[in-house]
Amino acid sequence: MFELIDHVGVAVADLDEALALYGGTFGMPVAHRETVDEQGVEAVLLDVGDCHVELLRPLGPDTPVGRFIERKGPGLHHVAYRVDDIEAALSKLAEAGVELIDSEPRIGIRRSRVAFVHPKATASVLTEIVEPAQEH
Amino acid sequence: MFELIDHVGVAVADLDEALALYGGTFGMPVAHRETVDEQGVEAVLLDVGDCHVELLRPLGPDTPVGRFIERKGPGLHHVAYRVDDIEAALSKLAEAGVELIDSEPRIGIRRSRVAFVHPKATASVLTEIVEPAQEH
Repeated sequence: MFELIDHVGVAVADLDEALALYGGTFGMPVAHRETVDEQGVEAVLLDVGDCHVELLRPLGPDTPVGRFIERKGPGLHHVAYRVDDIEAALSKLAEAGVELIDSEPRIGIRRSRVAFVHPKATASVLTEIVEPAQEH
Repeated sequence: MFELIDHVGVAVADLDEALALYGGTFGMPVAHRETVDEQGVEAVLLDVGDCHVELLRPLGPDTPVGRFIERKGPGLHHVAYRVDDIEAALSKLAEAGVELIDSEPRIGIRRSRVAFVHPKATASVLTEIVEPAQEH
C-alpha cells in the first residue's frame, strides 16, 4: 500500500537554525517553502534523494505544532508514507478498522493530497499518507 | 551527503501489536528480525519501498529505548539517513562542528554500519546515519 517514506515532519522552534543544519550542514536542497495558515505552520521541504524532511515552525502557541512543542519539545512530529491512490489507501485503512483523523483527503503542501491516521491507531506515531501532485 | 531516509525507528511497548499494524494492516513486508543485546532492543525491520520502518522493543526498562518510553511514551524514536561512505559522512559532520555520539561507525542491524548524531546538535531529533551492508 505504501511506496516509500515520503517525509518525516520535524517540529522546530527556530526555522533559521533548522535550515542552517538541514540545508547547510546536512546539504539537503530546499525544495519548497510555504505558510499554511489553515494548519498554523510555516513549512520547508528539503530533498533527501526521493524522500524529504519537512520542517514545521508553528505560527503561534495555540496551533497543533505549537502545542506539540509545548508538550514534548521540538523533535520528530510525524512520518508520512507515499501512496499513488489516496482514496484507495483510505478505504483499505477504514475497512481494516483503523481510526482516521481525515476520512477524506485534504490539500497539503505543494498541492499534494494528504490524510492523517489517528495516533491512537498507531501507538502514538502521528502518521500521514500523501499522494503527491502529478508534477512532483 | 544523504541518499535517502533509510528508516524511521519506532519505540513500541508491544511488538506483536505493532507487527499486526505495520506488517498486517499496513502490509509492510518483514525484512529482518534481530535481538541486539548490546543496545537492549529487539528490532524488526519492515520494507516500505526502498525505505524501512524499524520497530524497537526494549529488552528492559533500564535500556535507552526503555527509558525513552518511560519518559515520552511509545512513538517516533529516531530517523536514519542512508550514506554510501559512513567514514566520509562522519568526517564532514565532525568538520562542521556537529556533536556526534559515535565518532566511529559501529555495527547496526543486518550488519550495517551506523553512527548516531547527538540530539543536542539536531534540536532533539535523534539522528542516525547508516551505510547498509553490501548485500542489502
